[in-house]
Amino acid sequence: MFDDLKILDTTLRDGEQTPGVLITSNEKLRIAQTLDKLGVDIIEAGSAITSKDEQKSIKLITENNLDAEICSFARPLAVDIDTAIECDVDSIHLVIPSSDLHIDYKLRKTRPQVEEMAVNATEYAKDHGLIVELSTEDATRTEISDLEHLYNLCIDAGADRICACDTVGILTPDKAYDFYHQLSKLSRPLSVHCHNDFGLAVANTLMALKAGAKQAHVTINGLGERAGNTSCEELVMSLESLYNVKTNINTELFYETSQLVERISGVNLQSNKAIVGENAFAHESGIHADGVLKKSETYEPIKPETVGHRRRFILGKHVGKHVIHEKIKETNTEVTDEELNRIFARIKSLSDMGKTVTDVDLQAVTDDILHINPEDSLVLEEYTTVSGNRVTPTASVKVNIDDEEKIAAGVGVGPVDAVIEAIRKSIEDVADISLEEYHVDAITGGTDALIDVLVKLKHDDEIITARSTEPDIIMASVEAYLKGVNKILTDKNRK
Amino acid sequence: MFDDLKILDTTLRDGEQTPGVLITSNEKLRIAQTLDKLGVDIIEAGSAITSKDEQKSIKLITENNLDAEICSFARPLAVDIDTAIECDVDSIHLVIPSSDLHIDYKLRKTRPQVEEMAVNATEYAKDHGLIVELSTEDATRTEISDLEHLYNLCIDAGADRICACDTVGILTPDKAYDFYHQLSKLSRPLSVHCHNDFGLAVANTLMALKAGAKQAHVTINGLGERAGNTSCEELVMSLESLYNVKTNINTELFYETSQLVERISGVNLQSNKAIVGENAFAHESGIHADGVLKKSETYEPIKPETVGHRRRFILGKHVGKHVIHEKIKETNTEVTDEELNRIFARIKSLSDMGKTVTDVDLQAVTDDILHINPEDSLVLEEYTTVSGNRVTPTASVKVNIDDEEKIAAGVGVGPVDAVIEAIRKSIEDVADISLEEYHVDAITGGTDALIDVLVKLKHDDEIITARSTEPDIIMASVEAYLKGVNKILTDKNRK
Repeated sequence: MFDDLKILDTTLRDGEQTPGVLITSNEKLRIAQTLDKLGVDIIEAGSAITSKDEQKSIKLITENNLDAEICSFARPLAVDIDTAIECDVDSIHLVIPSSDLHIDYKLRKTRPQVEEMAVNATEYAKDHGLIVELSTEDATRTEISDLEHLYNLCIDAGADRICACDTVGILTPDKAYDFYHQLSKLSRPLSVHCHNDFGLAVANTLMALKAGAKQAHVTINGLGERAGNTSCEELVMSLESLYNVKTNINTELFYETSQLVERISGVNLQSNKAIVGENAFAHESGIHADGVLKKSETYEPIKPETVGHRRRFILGKHVGKHVIHEKIKETNTEVTDEELNRIFARIKSLSDMGKTVTDVDLQAVTDDILHINPEDSLVLEEYTTVSGNRVTPTASVKVNIDDEEKIAAGVGVGPVDAVIEAIRKSIEDVADISLEEYHVDAITGGTDALIDVLVKLKHDDEIITARSTEPDIIMASVEAYLKGVNKILTDKNRK
Repeated sequence: MFDDLKILDTTLRDGEQTPGVLITSNEKLRIAQTLDKLGVDIIEAGSAITSKDEQKSIKLITENNLDAEICSFARPLAVDIDTAIECDVDSIHLVIPSSDLHIDYKLRKTRPQVEEMAVNATEYAKDHGLIVELSTEDATRTEISDLEHLYNLCIDAGADRICACDTVGILTPDKAYDFYHQLSKLSRPLSVHCHNDFGLAVANTLMALKAGAKQAHVTINGLGERAGNTSCEELVMSLESLYNVKTNINTELFYETSQLVERISGVNLQSNKAIVGENAFAHESGIHADGVLKKSETYEPIKPETVGHRRRFILGKHVGKHVIHEKIKETNTEVTDEELNRIFARIKSLSDMGKTVTDVDLQAVTDDILHINPEDSLVLEEYTTVSGNRVTPTASVKVNIDDEEKIAAGVGVGPVDAVIEAIRKSIEDVADISLEEYHVDAITGGTDALIDVLVKLKHDDEIITARSTEPDIIMASVEAYLKGVNKILTDKNRK
């Protein structure tokens, strides 16, 4: 069971078929190189027949001499196979519909005609020196006997691997086991290709492998048509952590691989995406964070480092005293138990009203309880910005920094950029602060929706977060930036 | 198998423990009412002991006389139970750690002490008239015999239901079946509570129900700590569509329930989220869209209407001719086969370079091929906007509409709002166009990152999309809006 498993990654083919996703040739090469480092056995690099651009992408990848086998998708047509050969691929993923539904309504052919096409295409591809993975679309709505008949014809014609696709994701774990178990007696290695329409792709793939399949088709982040494909990171971590099966994957590269694919594909991960989501190792609730501080295994099935991720503690409504104490100690501030209790109560009531509590919020509460009364070092007296289609976005600011008035102006690619630049200039003599991350949540609604800006600022080696919510994106950005700068200047004065 | 299944929704308790998520009392009431309409059997409305605000939320819900049983989470402490009683809940979800790991490191107690706490708490809650669901945390890392011992003690003390939690999501479908099967012989109904750390929560819950569990804990959108909980919509649709099991859920309310929870929680769904994601029923690839147009079952396991969703065809690199033809026909334009081929080729090469092709892009290509030369009705000659902390965001525009020059000014909550208002005023005599949706993708990077704005405009009963990408958010918004307005004005002139 689970011997010699192989992973075929189809992020660049089935993943790129995600509606709205488009990946350029250079980006595809970059993803292929990353997948190769990650250690996948086979990379399905695209479907050569799709377009000139697709051919260019596949060639770029095959020229790169990666360790992985490079594969192209093809229909059982000579023109598809020829185009793939021109791209110098090692193997071909030859896909033939097998259900009555697909044969009747989509192809409008008879089963014997389809079988003949499959056999001819297999022979043609073998004659041209390709490894052939013969794959049937909608296999899970096909009679097993029809599948076996087709597979055996194609094995006789030279097919090297056989793949059965659950094209519309209708398997369940128990049915997946039975289905792939029946096919695992074929004389060639069996592949499993699942879709996630009911959220079961990873489970079904696992059960297929348990039943004797030797290869799994996956995509990074579960990209793919509709609800996507089996997620590579979830499948591999399940195998390694829950079944103790060693794969060829360097799991500690999962997080950066996932981030790369998220950035390039533009498909943003849900924060609670398993293994690689922003919250996969984040703890807010008092009970949970407290447990993790005592012993991480209490609320973490694996260590975040195993997948190149990191643990985060979030200051929120459910935050516990332990986490708050840790955070306060980081700023060289000492508090008594009684003070900590009062800070804790205040943070709880604060978070009852709003969103995540940032570093700046925690400091404000702590300072208040300890009767520290730091005045903001930096006060923005005035800012004005002008932009337009015939105007370079320009901003001026008048600030008061440690009781000294400064005026500065800046330009930028837009008004937000211009104002931030003007403020940065006005304080450059006092502190070297860089904007590490600027994040605006997706805005949907009218142009008057509330906009939530979160900034991460860096000074020396410390990173602090600040947030502001306003209907005006410029105002929200300026306020978040100012709050962050003031926290840094206060910390600096204390040290 | 699968008889009398009950659904306990914990979106408001475990879901709200999602790091960074905070839901106000009124929003909680709104979600509870929606869950009640959806038909869940039990609503876990919160954990009463957490805060005053939480108590207010739970009371608001219990006062509403919903059909569902209303439940509060509680630790095995009298104070937790008393607080829940004050909120008038029907039942209590009494949670006790059961693994050595949790007992030793988190509670720092002995197993007999924990058992005594559980029994006392069960008796106390029963004495006060509550339905008791006795639940063990980290049950899947506990010896079965220890679990059975504890459960039987609590059943003797009056517990009405028993729940075993897979707190860190380490079950696999096969282990889930075995684990819950062993516990299904208890004399009280068994509940399953799974976490999604390896992407297996839905599959594990299904297998537990198949093994004899009678109740499933779920959340809408799979919200919850870390990688979240079992997703309600995925579980219920798997039961109904893949196992033919009828639940009490009105499945056609899933999409709107999911949207409500997404909006209120601020946890954005991945576009490829199963059942309720934006792409769950979207088709781009030529082969797929073509198949769906011929017969939807070829590439759709269920009809989108079953879950209140809708089918979408996306114009992208993989788009097929059929879809493009459908879209062109919608604008009352007729094309020959040869023209369609040329439009198709151009759309493919266009999308080889950029993002999703919008309605405006398709029209531009079609007009060009058909030698229709519509001049833009609306040309923006000039716009300028001023904003600041002491300035009302103001914009002026000079436009040329059907060769007539108009000047208008507008104010808004921010500069984007002001410019859009000024343009709207400048064209109000010509057409009544409303901005239905304004969408900016999440921006992460610097303040000079490229910003992608997509607008949906409505005129009469038609909705059209347009997009623009610029580093300046105002410029991007104005351009997208103008493109959309011009498409509407052109369509109007053609009719």
